[in-house]
Amino acid sequence: MTRSNALYAQSGGVTAVINASAAGVIEAWRRAAAKDAKLGKLYAGRNGIVGVLAEDLIDTTRETDAVIAALRHVPGGAFGSCRFKLGDPAKPEGKGAAQFDRLLAVFQAHAIRYFFYNGGGDSADTCLKVSQLALARGYPLQAIHVPKTIDNDLPLTDTCPGFGSVAKYVAVSTREASLDVASMASTSTRVFVLEVMGRHAGWIAAAAGLADTPTHPLPLLILLPEVPFDETRFLDAVRAKVDAFGYCTVVASEGAQTADGKFLSDQGLRDAFGHAQLGGVAPLLAGLVKDQLKLKVHWAVSDYLQRSARHVASATDLAQAVAVGKAAVALAMKGRNRVMATIERTANKPYAWRIGAAELDKVANVERTMPAEFIGADGYSITPAARRYLLPLIQGEAKAPWQDGLPLHPTLKRAPVAKKLPAYVP
Amino acid sequence: MTRSNALYAQSGGVTAVINASAAGVIEAWRRAAAKDAKLGKLYAGRNGIVGVLAEDLIDTTRETDAVIAALRHVPGGAFGSCRFKLGDPAKPEGKGAAQFDRLLAVFQAHAIRYFFYNGGGDSADTCLKVSQLALARGYPLQAIHVPKTIDNDLPLTDTCPGFGSVAKYVAVSTREASLDVASMASTSTRVFVLEVMGRHAGWIAAAAGLADTPTHPLPLLILLPEVPFDETRFLDAVRAKVDAFGYCTVVASEGAQTADGKFLSDQGLRDAFGHAQLGGVAPLLAGLVKDQLKLKVHWAVSDYLQRSARHVASATDLAQAVAVGKAAVALAMKGRNRVMATIERTANKPYAWRIGAAELDKVANVERTMPAEFIGADGYSITPAARRYLLPLIQGEAKAPWQDGLPLHPTLKRAPVAKKLPAYVP
Repeated sequence: MTRSNALYAQSGGVTAVINASAAGVIEAWRRAAAKDAKLGKLYAGRNGIVGVLAEDLIDTTRETDAVIAALRHVPGGAFGSCRFKLGDPAKPEGKGAAQFDRLLAVFQAHAIRYFFYNGGGDSADTCLKVSQLALARGYPLQAIHVPKTIDNDLPLTDTCPGFGSVAKYVAVSTREASLDVASMASTSTRVFVLEVMGRHAGWIAAAAGLADTPTHPLPLLILLPEVPFDETRFLDAVRAKVDAFGYCTVVASEGAQTADGKFLSDQGLRDAFGHAQLGGVAPLLAGLVKDQLKLKVHWAVSDYLQRSARHVASATDLAQAVAVGKAAVALAMKGRNRVMATIERTANKPYAWRIGAAELDKVANVERTMPAEFIGADGYSITPAARRYLLPLIQGEAKAPWQDGLPLHPTLKRAPVAKKLPAYVP
Repeated sequence: MTRSNALYAQSGGVTAVINASAAGVIEAWRRAAAKDAKLGKLYAGRNGIVGVLAEDLIDTTRETDAVIAALRHVPGGAFGSCRFKLGDPAKPEGKGAAQFDRLLAVFQAHAIRYFFYNGGGDSADTCLKVSQLALARGYPLQAIHVPKTIDNDLPLTDTCPGFGSVAKYVAVSTREASLDVASMASTSTRVFVLEVMGRHAGWIAAAAGLADTPTHPLPLLILLPEVPFDETRFLDAVRAKVDAFGYCTVVASEGAQTADGKFLSDQGLRDAFGHAQLGGVAPLLAGLVKDQLKLKVHWAVSDYLQRSARHVASATDLAQAVAVGKAAVALAMKGRNRVMATIERTANKPYAWRIGAAELDKVANVERTMPAEFIGADGYSITPAARRYLLPLIQGEAKAPWQDGLPLHPTLKRAPVAKKLPAYVP
């Protein structure tokens, strides 16, 4: 009897907790396989789908239970992820058809009957297409999507694992830096600008609003991609906050843009020699404040720090990341196919959630943007409704072991699976 | 009988643990005053010495013991700090003499006989001058300096409270972000640049080297102000790391400079309209890597996040911050004057330290730079000696309470002390 194997792959931008989902999938698979002789090995794609195309698979059975459990504490993608968009398999003239053929060939060569794909919107679409192609070819495959994205833009799930932790990072950093600025504003920096991720939606910047509480009110301005940037209005708002509080904290989405859709970060910066420079929203806003308001300003760009900050991850987010991983295997064992494990919110106060499932054809290519009722009337704040939605997601401090002053990270073997196919020529 | 009061003031850039020193001073004073009827109240300058000049004092006795203990968990300066350089009192034509006269007048009006000044090098000098002036005028004052600076540049102390926590932040962030970059480098970002503080010395950037360990080797390049920046050498080094590891992490001091002493951050950036832009070392280096090596690059600037990140503070640093605060009061009670409480390292492995004291005239105006033997031969790394020095300073994770997903911060009354003098006219 040929046992049915499984494949897990990570896709797109990594998060502080994507490896917790990997742990969930692997642990659930191990438990299922221990009880069912028809289930074989769980492989992982090295560097995601790129590794699957290259038949470069990792044998996860070579990792100990302790190492797999410790994946909960490691940011980044433990098996490697990638930014790689497969072509459209429906276009015979493109390379997509050949890519999907190759994926199925690899699945077939390694008796892979279960595909757990851990990613965002594009990956949901890929997962669906792989499954549809298998169906069309009569190849028995169950494809389950494991949601992951700091962008929080997947539909049909209350939140996306990865988002809660970046939201906590942003809220905590906003509070901490604001305390710093407030304490010195009388003679030093008046305005602090923090740039955070979010090219198309303001979910991450919105989380800064959680730092502004009744006991610790903050003079905070949040710049969202959803609200067109107007220089005069912005500078007036900064001035008003400084007048009222002595200082102002600005948290800006990297996707902040003017009404004509031009990103603030795309300003054609040149150095003294005329060389192009990489721009950023934070230095641009800081320059505006300094030039126009003549106020001392500081700026920060968190970039990858925010999405890799496992040391300040949300315990809620971590639990949900593990849960969608385990749920993906459970869904597969129940015979489900073409579904994504989801988080369903059942209560706000106290927050309660459970695992659900959504059909992948309703997930793929649908982007959830921030609802208008989450954005304050001034365009620079969040509403109580947004707070009710966001606050549960940052609850709890995800534990992790430390050693010698640093987070303790396991060393994985990442042992390769023997190849069975000719080399892949893209 | 007039009781002897005390004054505590925070000075210069704040840190993640300066309030822990405040807690140490206040708690030790409360214990001493409870046993000695001659000791009165401990005041704090609102916004540091600026508040003392304005006779704007805070009555710390109005804060509960619980609130004072909780100062250990709050970044920023709880009583306010300032960037304000007093004039030279020895120059009768300057404003310095009038400022120091005013300070003594405030001390006298409020029966302040003990001055605890919590700051860096400039503050040590101020503390010394206040004490000397009091001596010359026959005013009984004991002036004790409580060391604090993330720059780690005070002499005669093994380290400066505040530095260990920023070092831990930088080491942890470097490790976490590197795991992120490593996991996606095959198809995405190859080079990540993190800019950290340190205008004149590379202590903070050097701490990134702690993230590179035998079990988790990192392709790390550290740019120190002490090593002149050479574009070709730098780009060659980045290329070599990318060739060997697939990616490269660069941690750059804001003070990185070329051989002629020109800061990299001072490049005269202009936007498309010719407006001056605030520069940064990280975007500059990122632009170089992108243009010259054609590699995908990301960059981050931690700015105030690094020095306010109490959530990832070093337990060692926190303990030392409290200890120098308590020691300052103990030194005062022993009749000492014109001294700074210091940290003395007594052993490296296991790390052990004790409190000492240094004469302020040997501290003021002496800057401790990073020794040459701490810088690796390639100019981009730290030596084993640097590691032996730095590693103990980031040990332990300083506990702090959380509430509702955020750090729990106390609310201070900051009650003003009734003024007794005419308004100050600078």
